[in-house]
Amino acid sequence: MTRVYLDHNATTPLAPAARAAMVAAMDQCGNPSSVHAEGRAAKAVIERARAQIAAAFGADGADIVFTSGSTEGASLALAGRDLHGAAIEHDAVRAWTCEDLLVSSAGLVAVDTPAETTLQLANSETGVVQTLPQGLAVSDVTQGFGKLPIAFNWMGVGMALISAHKLGGPKGIGALVMPRGTDLAAQIRGGGQEMGRRSGTENVIGIAGFGAAAEAAAAQLADGTWERVQQLRDLMEEALVAGAPGLICIGKDVARLPNTSCFAVPGWKGETQVMQMDLSGFAISAGSACSSGKVRASAVLTAMGFDENTAQGAVRVSLGPTTTEDDVLRFAQAWLQKHKKHCARVA
Amino acid sequence: MTRVYLDHNATTPLAPAARAAMVAAMDQCGNPSSVHAEGRAAKAVIERARAQIAAAFGADGADIVFTSGSTEGASLALAGRDLHGAAIEHDAVRAWTCEDLLVSSAGLVAVDTPAETTLQLANSETGVVQTLPQGLAVSDVTQGFGKLPIAFNWMGVGMALISAHKLGGPKGIGALVMPRGTDLAAQIRGGGQEMGRRSGTENVIGIAGFGAAAEAAAAQLADGTWERVQQLRDLMEEALVAGAPGLICIGKDVARLPNTSCFAVPGWKGETQVMQMDLSGFAISAGSACSSGKVRASAVLTAMGFDENTAQGAVRVSLGPTTTEDDVLRFAQAWLQKHKKHCARVA
Repeated sequence: MTRVYLDHNATTPLAPAARAAMVAAMDQCGNPSSVHAEGRAAKAVIERARAQIAAAFGADGADIVFTSGSTEGASLALAGRDLHGAAIEHDAVRAWTCEDLLVSSAGLVAVDTPAETTLQLANSETGVVQTLPQGLAVSDVTQGFGKLPIAFNWMGVGMALISAHKLGGPKGIGALVMPRGTDLAAQIRGGGQEMGRRSGTENVIGIAGFGAAAEAAAAQLADGTWERVQQLRDLMEEALVAGAPGLICIGKDVARLPNTSCFAVPGWKGETQVMQMDLSGFAISAGSACSSGKVRASAVLTAMGFDENTAQGAVRVSLGPTTTEDDVLRFAQAWLQKHKKHCARVA
Repeated sequence: MTRVYLDHNATTPLAPAARAAMVAAMDQCGNPSSVHAEGRAAKAVIERARAQIAAAFGADGADIVFTSGSTEGASLALAGRDLHGAAIEHDAVRAWTCEDLLVSSAGLVAVDTPAETTLQLANSETGVVQTLPQGLAVSDVTQGFGKLPIAFNWMGVGMALISAHKLGGPKGIGALVMPRGTDLAAQIRGGGQEMGRRSGTENVIGIAGFGAAAEAAAAQLADGTWERVQQLRDLMEEALVAGAPGLICIGKDVARLPNTSCFAVPGWKGETQVMQMDLSGFAISAGSACSSGKVRASAVLTAMGFDENTAQGAVRVSLGPTTTEDDVLRFAQAWLQKHKKHCARVA
């Protein structure tokens, strides 16, 4: 039986277009900072990708500063600014905020002073989508870009974090997007690349993959891929709730990413569920997978007011464009089998 | 006529082993931080590469922290420490040092207080190799790793910067190497990856390429590749000096990288030479190619005491393992032709 990957919010398989662009970029032997033909060819790969990302992200005319991913982007956008933020943000954002914004039981955050606040567009664990206020200082759009119809130029945010590996691109490349001419001091200095905002020889192959993935993701978004994914997600949740009526489906009553399902069985640890599903051939996760091997109650669910027992009993299933009906129905069946055994154990 | 790439110190073509490892890593769909099978497989790619780099760099038992390259590594190792340094360091290092060390006319740096000093192993522009004192705080080994027989565990330095794209790996991935357990606060925070020293989802494909490139580079170093390269470099310099007796060959009297030749014709701008050679089919550079499109006299040569006219008249030719005798002889012939025209113009 082939394995079923249902952890697309942790990272996505490389899209065919991204793979092809990366393999093609491997033939570029020059340094993009070199003035000779080989250098100019490498530079052209970067600028083509930048244009692809600008088009896909609705960011024409904006500055797209390549980083090694959203974690570096968060550091570049947020370090030293002490912005308001909420506990549902990714750890990479939480590292730099004064964590004083309240989170509703539905997972929504109210913002008083947008110009001094950072707020994510969509939560990686629950999929809950925020309505971003105009004039927001920074938004982590990592989970939304590619899955939701958004355009940076209409968002009214000062800076947006995006990452390739959440939309079919490679891991280790992302960007910080901002209106042209935004004042931003570099953290990584010395070479003057990226208009002086981020030095270092560019990850040409990764950037090529990011550009191609963004372009392909925009095409998928336009052709209705995520409506189909949402139907599969809903189908799966119906099957789960039908077999386990006490299941707590988190974020079901508010806007959510089309691919994300977060559900909890109080008392049945998420890590245990993940391991049992892994042994059964399904990759899912307990909480955010962006932290190395940590096992603890989800900070996101705790911030939403769930008790520790529930927060520890949650898992996340996240679908992708390649997920099939068979995948989600087989998953639901396998999970319900294990759930039945769990209920028998604790009865 | 196929082009001849003689700018290996700026960046190297991707080695076949690195390409193969990267293409193989493209099939890993998991996040290395995920606990399921896909996550563990991605993690294994990283740990295999780390072991390959440890073996190639003589750093068994040391901590190898992956970064996006030596520029980020310099920031992580040096920011806020205000170490002593010299003006011949790469701009990524110069950004963080108090630049007070003297440079001899041969390009050598004397160190008084190694524990408070950063010193490169080899200069990217001249190829001049330093004798590193024991107990040095930080060394930028970027240009030396892969070309010189060195072992981190015998160098006696607190931290070493290395980068994949100088030895046949991809651009955008490097590492900071340090004795196990060295105290180092992360700059990019949030996820806890790399033992808490550098957060962010890892550049798995790039890391796979770095590991394979390091292994291949170590094998080439052992099989005498660089002795052959040095013979070609010397052959080229002899041909150049024979045709242009006034040529200033920089660093010729001290230990140099086997592949690097830096020479100057006072009054004939390096940028002009680079452009003329580019049009003739040869990629070389004027100064360090790691800065974006800057045109100015080389800070390295100025620090060595060369006058502005000479410093501005220098170019760097850097060979690689694939360079042939035909490549260097054709280059010498083409350069001498342009040099003759230059002399006729200024006569």
